[in-house]
Amino acid sequence: MAPVKNGQVILNEVPKAGIIPGQTTVYREENLDIDATPLNGGFLVKTLTFSIDPVIFGRMKGPPPFGYTLGGPINNLGGGRVLRSEHPSFKVGDLVTGMMNFEEYVVVPAAQASMFETVDSSISLSARMGAAGLSGKTAYYGWKAYAPPSSKGNVCFVSSGAGAVGSIVIQLAKRDGYKVIASAGTDEKVSTMKDLGADVAFNYKTTATKDVLAKEGLINVYWDNVGGATLEAAIDAAAPRAHFIECGMLSGYLGESYHIKNLFMTIPKEVQLHGFIAVGWMEENWGREFRETMPKLIASGEIKYKEELIKGLDKAAEAVTAQLEGKNVGKPVLIVADE
Amino acid sequence: MAPVKNGQVILNEVPKAGIIPGQTTVYREENLDIDATPLNGGFLVKTLTFSIDPVIFGRMKGPPPFGYTLGGPINNLGGGRVLRSEHPSFKVGDLVTGMMNFEEYVVVPAAQASMFETVDSSISLSARMGAAGLSGKTAYYGWKAYAPPSSKGNVCFVSSGAGAVGSIVIQLAKRDGYKVIASAGTDEKVSTMKDLGADVAFNYKTTATKDVLAKEGLINVYWDNVGGATLEAAIDAAAPRAHFIECGMLSGYLGESYHIKNLFMTIPKEVQLHGFIAVGWMEENWGREFRETMPKLIASGEIKYKEELIKGLDKAAEAVTAQLEGKNVGKPVLIVADE
Repeated sequence: MAPVKNGQVILNEVPKAGIIPGQTTVYREENLDIDATPLNGGFLVKTLTFSIDPVIFGRMKGPPPFGYTLGGPINNLGGGRVLRSEHPSFKVGDLVTGMMNFEEYVVVPAAQASMFETVDSSISLSARMGAAGLSGKTAYYGWKAYAPPSSKGNVCFVSSGAGAVGSIVIQLAKRDGYKVIASAGTDEKVSTMKDLGADVAFNYKTTATKDVLAKEGLINVYWDNVGGATLEAAIDAAAPRAHFIECGMLSGYLGESYHIKNLFMTIPKEVQLHGFIAVGWMEENWGREFRETMPKLIASGEIKYKEELIKGLDKAAEAVTAQLEGKNVGKPVLIVADE
Repeated sequence: MAPVKNGQVILNEVPKAGIIPGQTTVYREENLDIDATPLNGGFLVKTLTFSIDPVIFGRMKGPPPFGYTLGGPINNLGGGRVLRSEHPSFKVGDLVTGMMNFEEYVVVPAAQASMFETVDSSISLSARMGAAGLSGKTAYYGWKAYAPPSSKGNVCFVSSGAGAVGSIVIQLAKRDGYKVIASAGTDEKVSTMKDLGADVAFNYKTTATKDVLAKEGLINVYWDNVGGATLEAAIDAAAPRAHFIECGMLSGYLGESYHIKNLFMTIPKEVQLHGFIAVGWMEENWGREFRETMPKLIASGEIKYKEELIKGLDKAAEAVTAQLEGKNVGKPVLIVADE
């Protein structure tokens, strides 16, 4: 068979403020002979989908190993269909998910095969990018690691509560008996957060966060997706010995950050800030539980999710930027091919 | 007996930047008939000494219950001799320590008696204000709660390492097998920190903290007494999953605070910031162990301490200010009377 076009997204330049498609990242096409390209004991995947996460932007800025290699393809959680395989654990036709380079066809080396898993079709592949994927894991692992079991009256505040991670956090907090306060930047998102079970949902662009927190009581857990002024308001409203689960600081990703002024108050209030990323030790502790639990909760409808599908690998940079700008409701998922 | 003079230190005005003796705090004298003043089941203490701690300044600024009441006496850990008692647990002549108003004679109500303890003279009363007192407890509790047991090669960085708390932390970290890096603001303090066992000790005014940390390796534990730019440098030098024990932010107590710009990096590095004060749950968990352990280690010389004695209750405000300005080496202790 003649070589096919293999589109790729390359990190061409470390971003200063935002991503400039065609400059920060470049979409290019190469030819690949998918029947002949050597597998060396690995397998070849036709990419169907990628998870879009804020961490992609963070990794464009940092040096390896956390950051991407300049001049190489960016990568993130993806999913696809096995086209060829020399690996005993993966058969032609399997649906798989794992950390994949942003390419239309990905050769997974044998040494990386253990990082992939085969998945069934009880839930959609796009759900496996979001609620059952990196976003769901981030919510689940962070919550398991750092949210204390609720006692009656405990309050959890979630920022960016209509986002891919925040929307799952709202539901985990409600399942654990918390009163949940959730914020986002549009009225449509406020409505989504209420549907997900938030007791108090507000638009921080039209209602001051500090006023809501002052009224709704001291917070025992703050799930922080945004940092900046919202984090500052949360410290002011923190109950003694509150846990702040530091998942992201979206507010500072684009342009100038706001540097909080009341970090000192974490001392007399005995607040703990837990920075985390859903990898390594967290995967070891809760990965199996997550895989056994979350897809079932999603399939049964007990955990709800929203997603926004973006078509085309060449739209990857725009999709990441739209998420950073808070333009999507729910989980952005890039669709590379339908099958 | 005729009434005696009873000096007191009153919070007269909430400080804006620093303490202005005679304005922020006022030293005044009242008369007290020490033979006749009613005890109502409590006891009367002749004050001998007070612990001087940065928290005194913090409490001048905050509202009750953390802060002091405007117009009332300030208080902190003190020690003295029981002159009269109606309480079964305290006899005339006992040496006692506890949270005491800054007065030459203190009537301890029956309801507060359980917060006091009688002490022996195996170590000096001033040592019970410092290494065996609030400073020692702060170091001991914070270390027990948040420093992971060391594995070979673990590194601990202590700022303000010649101070009352930092000097104990250096020794606890060494006892647990850490490599210890310690910073302070004078060469005399650097020499003290080396005597206490610090592997690397430096003067942050003449050597850049970031250069030392870059050279001496990623830090697994940061004991933070100062906040600000030093905290920022420590985040840059943090090992993955480092623990930051947030004990104080001295650098911001006087005048303008420096607001750190890299708080975001606590997320990819999975750094945890543990704000704490040595009260309540910490006292419950480690108070008994501390009382059984620390005075013996001090008496035997296994834990060393330095102290600076300041004479006169009317010098309380100056003593707090000198500590905030970093003027003392070791623990400042106010001597109210010799016996």
